[in-house]
Amino acid sequence: MRDLTIGVIGAGSTYSPELIDGFLKRQDQLSVKRFVLMDIDQTKLDIVGGLVERIALTFDKKVEVIKTLNMEEAVDGADYVVTQFRVGRLPARARDEKIPLKYDLIGQETTGPGGFAKAMRTIPEILKIARAMEKYSPKSWLINFTNPSGIVTEAVSKYSDVNVIGLCNQPITTHNYIAEELGVASEDLYMDYFGLNHLGWIKRLLLNGEDISAEAFDKIINSPRLDHILGYHFTKDFLKALGLLPTGYLQYYYHTEESLAKLKSQPQCRAEVVMKIEEDILKLYQDPSLNKKPKMLEKRGGAWYSDAAVAVMSAIENDKQELHIVNVPNTGAIEGLPKDSIIEVPAVVGKSGAAPLVVGEVPLGITGLLQHVNAYENLTVKAGAEGCKATALVALCSHPFIKSTDVAKRLLDELISANQPYIQLR
Amino acid sequence: MRDLTIGVIGAGSTYSPELIDGFLKRQDQLSVKRFVLMDIDQTKLDIVGGLVERIALTFDKKVEVIKTLNMEEAVDGADYVVTQFRVGRLPARARDEKIPLKYDLIGQETTGPGGFAKAMRTIPEILKIARAMEKYSPKSWLINFTNPSGIVTEAVSKYSDVNVIGLCNQPITTHNYIAEELGVASEDLYMDYFGLNHLGWIKRLLLNGEDISAEAFDKIINSPRLDHILGYHFTKDFLKALGLLPTGYLQYYYHTEESLAKLKSQPQCRAEVVMKIEEDILKLYQDPSLNKKPKMLEKRGGAWYSDAAVAVMSAIENDKQELHIVNVPNTGAIEGLPKDSIIEVPAVVGKSGAAPLVVGEVPLGITGLLQHVNAYENLTVKAGAEGCKATALVALCSHPFIKSTDVAKRLLDELISANQPYIQLR
Amino acid sequence: MRDLTIGVIGAGSTYSPELIDGFLKRQDQLSVKRFVLMDIDQTKLDIVGGLVERIALTFDKKVEVIKTLNMEEAVDGADYVVTQFRVGRLPARARDEKIPLKYDLIGQETTGPGGFAKAMRTIPEILKIARAMEKYSPKSWLINFTNPSGIVTEAVSKYSDVNVIGLCNQPITTHNYIAEELGVASEDLYMDYFGLNHLGWIKRLLLNGEDISAEAFDKIINSPRLDHILGYHFTKDFLKALGLLPTGYLQYYYHTEESLAKLKSQPQCRAEVVMKIEEDILKLYQDPSLNKKPKMLEKRGGAWYSDAAVAVMSAIENDKQELHIVNVPNTGAIEGLPKDSIIEVPAVVGKSGAAPLVVGEVPLGITGLLQHVNAYENLTVKAGAEGCKATALVALCSHPFIKSTDVAKRLLDELISANQPYIQLR
Amino acid sequence: MRDLTIGVIGAGSTYSPELIDGFLKRQDQLSVKRFVLMDIDQTKLDIVGGLVERIALTFDKKVEVIKTLNMEEAVDGADYVVTQFRVGRLPARARDEKIPLKYDLIGQETTGPGGFAKAMRTIPEILKIARAMEKYSPKSWLINFTNPSGIVTEAVSKYSDVNVIGLCNQPITTHNYIAEELGVASEDLYMDYFGLNHLGWIKRLLLNGEDISAEAFDKIINSPRLDHILGYHFTKDFLKALGLLPTGYLQYYYHTEESLAKLKSQPQCRAEVVMKIEEDILKLYQDPSLNKKPKMLEKRGGAWYSDAAVAVMSAIENDKQELHIVNVPNTGAIEGLPKDSIIEVPAVVGKSGAAPLVVGEVPLGITGLLQHVNAYENLTVKAGAEGCKATALVALCSHPFIKSTDVAKRLLDELISANQPYIQLR
Repeated sequence: MRDLTIGVIGAGSTYSPELIDGFLKRQDQLSVKRFVLMDIDQTKLDIVGGLVERIALTFDKKVEVIKTLNMEEAVDGADYVVTQFRVGRLPARARDEKIPLKYDLIGQETTGPGGFAKAMRTIPEILKIARAMEKYSPKSWLINFTNPSGIVTEAVSKYSDVNVIGLCNQPITTHNYIAEELGVASEDLYMDYFGLNHLGWIKRLLLNGEDISAEAFDKIINSPRLDHILGYHFTKDFLKALGLLPTGYLQYYYHTEESLAKLKSQPQCRAEVVMKIEEDILKLYQDPSLNKKPKMLEKRGGAWYSDAAVAVMSAIENDKQELHIVNVPNTGAIEGLPKDSIIEVPAVVGKSGAAPLVVGEVPLGITGLLQHVNAYENLTVKAGAEGCKATALVALCSHPFIKSTDVAKRLLDELISANQPYIQLR
Repeated sequence: MRDLTIGVIGAGSTYSPELIDGFLKRQDQLSVKRFVLMDIDQTKLDIVGGLVERIALTFDKKVEVIKTLNMEEAVDGADYVVTQFRVGRLPARARDEKIPLKYDLIGQETTGPGGFAKAMRTIPEILKIARAMEKYSPKSWLINFTNPSGIVTEAVSKYSDVNVIGLCNQPITTHNYIAEELGVASEDLYMDYFGLNHLGWIKRLLLNGEDISAEAFDKIINSPRLDHILGYHFTKDFLKALGLLPTGYLQYYYHTEESLAKLKSQPQCRAEVVMKIEEDILKLYQDPSLNKKPKMLEKRGGAWYSDAAVAVMSAIENDKQELHIVNVPNTGAIEGLPKDSIIEVPAVVGKSGAAPLVVGEVPLGITGLLQHVNAYENLTVKAGAEGCKATALVALCSHPFIKSTDVAKRLLDELISANQPYIQLR
Repeated sequence: MRDLTIGVIGAGSTYSPELIDGFLKRQDQLSVKRFVLMDIDQTKLDIVGGLVERIALTFDKKVEVIKTLNMEEAVDGADYVVTQFRVGRLPARARDEKIPLKYDLIGQETTGPGGFAKAMRTIPEILKIARAMEKYSPKSWLINFTNPSGIVTEAVSKYSDVNVIGLCNQPITTHNYIAEELGVASEDLYMDYFGLNHLGWIKRLLLNGEDISAEAFDKIINSPRLDHILGYHFTKDFLKALGLLPTGYLQYYYHTEESLAKLKSQPQCRAEVVMKIEEDILKLYQDPSLNKKPKMLEKRGGAWYSDAAVAVMSAIENDKQELHIVNVPNTGAIEGLPKDSIIEVPAVVGKSGAAPLVVGEVPLGITGLLQHVNAYENLTVKAGAEGCKATALVALCSHPFIKSTDVAKRLLDELISANQPYIQLR
Repeated sequence: MRDLTIGVIGAGSTYSPELIDGFLKRQDQLSVKRFVLMDIDQTKLDIVGGLVERIALTFDKKVEVIKTLNMEEAVDGADYVVTQFRVGRLPARARDEKIPLKYDLIGQETTGPGGFAKAMRTIPEILKIARAMEKYSPKSWLINFTNPSGIVTEAVSKYSDVNVIGLCNQPITTHNYIAEELGVASEDLYMDYFGLNHLGWIKRLLLNGEDISAEAFDKIINSPRLDHILGYHFTKDFLKALGLLPTGYLQYYYHTEESLAKLKSQPQCRAEVVMKIEEDILKLYQDPSLNKKPKMLEKRGGAWYSDAAVAVMSAIENDKQELHIVNVPNTGAIEGLPKDSIIEVPAVVGKSGAAPLVVGEVPLGITGLLQHVNAYENLTVKAGAEGCKATALVALCSHPFIKSTDVAKRLLDELISANQPYIQLR
């Protein structure tokens, strides 16, 4: 095993201990010699970095922890660069969640106009990181967690030469909830899944290779825990007619009306809730006796986050050729989508990257929404990378949520204005 | 010139004199010996048929006019069968326009849930006509005007062996309005157009073969008559950013919100307005001295209707190999749509049918909406032809307007119930 | 009608009077004010140019004739540039025909290794012309007749911004022979044709729009004049099984063995025969009393050459929107071929160019050969335009004739060496 | 582990002990309770079956061995059906190898007219087996080794509902020879391979995930053992220009001339050599003290045959989700080939079958030959399954070897006549 340097961009995130814990649990597979933690927020970097340093002391081998405000330092010499930064931090997220509501549109971190604004803020930054990686660590891998993960990964994939895999803990979370519901071991279950990030469907479920979709779908659809398992209490008749299981974020498309009503009725947006949780977590992290991932972190969300991330890095590093659901270029896997779109599908992951399995033709009941959102994402990547306002307007208008190009025009103006200095368009 | 028999299904329509007038004006190209007028409404058939008989007397050659309640009689021996029937007549249209409004959805004859209901009523009937044509006039041509024209044509194309071309007067209307605005002769202008029926875009404008798109688009976008020319006052910034001109029905997608508000504010739905107009027209038609298309018919809409229809029949009959914008199977013309979808594009029309020009890749700003609506149409055709309720639910939920599968479920139930006995699903 | 300047590259060709005659016959459609004749051979330019000058005097309006050795002069200010030059002239053609025979391979001007050598000589020259057109007459049209017409046109299409249409008299010749055989007027017959240049098949025959393929194919296949009509006595059983009619150059693929034997048995290659004919024709051209296209020119081949060329220019100039079989980018017309390959199909020709009709899926019995030759052509264009020897070897080895990559290697070396200084590869 | 019943069709093959040996070595993974050996040759069945019975006694657990002349008995209740039968046995193979030579065409068991004849004999038989499997063991897997493996597998895939995977030992053999040449462990090497059965190319070589293609290709191309490694001394310049490594059977395409000369110069065809070897082996097998796979079997060819077969069965049975190079439906993996063609590529094999990785666009230097042979195979499958003589002629003429459709016609007649009663066409 070679000794690894792991660069973490946005390391002040309260998730970082979860990530480090993932490496701690996989010391037999990955030999880390150095974590380079980068953030632009010195205070959070100190607090979170302090905890990481204490966890690092519990590794079997000596692990160096470096804290830096300089992105290039985190990239230079890294074997893997993990991106989990958030441009504009939680206040920007709060705006992403609140502004669309004023226009009677879903306000959400990744889906819809909120995700659009986040993408427009993030793409220029991820491309700076990509440029640095091309220069300082051209053989390294970028493991992207920054949302909207599919769009951000697509920007890197289309506009740089960096090796990149996008990740999301949603497929693995759904997988585990389903296994739990069916009362089977997670590793015995195979979830045949496809789509885009935060727009995924489950096509089949296999138990030790046996296709159990018919009975399993039926059980899940009729379960009192449907809401928990899939992330939403989707209309049963619709699920039966569709013949596939949608994952949670599809609530914003299949139940736009109800989701919007709920978002509007909440006293605080999610970002505001998270701000409070983060405050508590950061307090906790300052406890000098704490040297492991605290239980409380689970409240923050992101279950199996480290599993998704570190398992993929181990698959690459050890050339495991094992299946992971990741965000990769389509290359022809899903028929009817451009070959360079980033899709979220099972892929064989090894040292040379992630090779997607062929998905082929998707059911007609899925095609329309999938292609519509994909076109929006392609346009958003283009607008973000090229900084063109006209493209940004077409991108936003191409989102299925938009019910008026007039409204979209005003919304775009407000998003740009509220996101200064992060969104610069010509 | 061979002598032609023209079957007209839904001949009680007040449009029929317009159609007959089209033949009257083209006697040098098409030699009609017999019109077989079929309708299920004896009263309207008598009134409209009476006028047709009087117009027929003004033809240079003797033309026989037959009125019948029997569809098979209109099909048997026909060279061209023109379909312009309306299942459930105007009261059904009124329901199509009103029911969706109760769910805060566009209520429109062809676009959205209203068009969906109309399709579900119409597909079984058009397939009965197709069956009769297969049996009694297998070499004849079905010229379909019945709305939603693309979906209805697709049903015939996919589920029968009948020669079919779908038509709509919208492209020719837009073409003529643009020529008028630009101050050029209609025949000197070429409108490079593509899309689905009632979902079309203008890609380029050529004047005597010269590409004048840049200046012409600019002029149209900034014209005070934009509303008249394209059928809606689309957002200028959006049109500029898009780089194509949308046609009128796209208002329901690009301005869903505003269109819905307008529809809800109207005291009467369009069907109700039309009922009154039709009453007046039918009164007029009863004037025994009237033997030509009355001026008043223009109020009813349908400008250039006969031009679109009879010109295409003449192109077929005389093997003209000339370009018409028609509804035909894609066969690969538009990249990214199934090969058997019905699309609306320029095609070379001659005796062996309509051969579409290659459109190729469509601009990314169009792709999402085009593919989304196309998937909805494919599903609606399937649901209508196969009579499956689950497919109907998935089809309706696949329409971009639908904001809740729960609401869609209830809406579908109401549409089915309100459309008895026309919609029969298992 | 605007006044036109026609540039002719390779105007010393004995075909030039035929071309000028085409303009003479179409004075009502095309108003030529100037022919600029360019050739590198002063003697031929003087002789042929002299005859052209005398024919020019017979035009209704005054027509200027300019003779020049300078290609740029022929391009500058031209509305149409017609290319019919031959790099290395007939001696090079003789080598193209003879060298492959030494390797037991078809030696032919356009098909196989001979055509490959011709392409490799011609591509650098046509690209020089294209560069000049981009600079001096960016709105003009290049009408290419230089063989191998498909490959040469593809080079211009892929490696320049010039408006180009490739032409060949083979489809129109076959069309006319078939009409003659069937005893019908040529203009009443529609030949549904597709393929690559010199690799075309007839899918259907329509008489005044009626599909007469079944009986017409049968008549042609069984005709004693099969050889004359299609250009070869193809195996009848094979033609029946195939269900399409091949055009003449397919003899080299469907009857490689027999064609090779015949070529080897001929005392002179075609180039040598043509050299003799040309000598006679040039003598004739010097007759100062001759002021029209001489009858004898027909021996030279190239029937309907001017019809194909001038009719297409008239369709462009007059924005006729009429169907011609031309060489244009695929853009999706033929499924299974790259979108930027040049194909030979019916296209609607007008001022903005040639828009191909959709061909769609080709019969499986054609697919293999069509795709194989197309890949060879794509590679040859790349090798010729980029001047890469390795690509040239792969291109030549990709030709279906090649039965040994070892032999191909030696053959390539000989072709390069025999074609100095025309073929320069790295 | 469930107890397995393995049906072997064509069990009289001298390869059977090799297959049984594969199961013997993998007792920890596959628990066989019964081998059902079926052959139509009682003598060979007795001899080979006798040895199998003796080997079976060396298994840790009791294994039943059943010998039968009845195919349905071997299929009924089987968990895996392995097909390795040979219609017409070695004398038919000898004809396949000899008849084409009379026409100056490659005479080979799987490639060219010989393989075509074998396919035409075999398809009707494999479809009988498939019909029996549909009836008696619808959940079982057909592991096909019968050549031409791709075509035979495609027939089952297109014309039945049977679960089928086609196998060939060629990829694994090449893989192992390359590992040996590079001096690396076979399991550390990943061979990125694609194509059709007996028409495969190596795109990349990865050592523990590192791309070593550049240096490894160079080493192999320049190795004195090139002939041994790839199966032929391909032209070095060509290999370098191509940028991929061809596998052995490509000698018949890249070196048709040389291969034909060699085949014609051999005193005996391979079938005749094998007949003699088989005689010796069968003698050896009758030794009642022999209870293991004899060393001598290696002479017969088929190295790693059991590895390829039994490893795949183990991957299915144990739902291993591991990569194997197998013959599976394209489904979109290789761009430019029909989705239902059988291709030979790495696929993730588990209980639900083999899911191919996306290959995407193939290099242009490969496309032509790959598509050409694929079209021939598609047509051969159609001809064999539908029994149509016209299709058979088009299929044979679509093979790149054929240089005359006249000759092909005569060759087809002779192949049909020589293969009575096995080939029945209308």
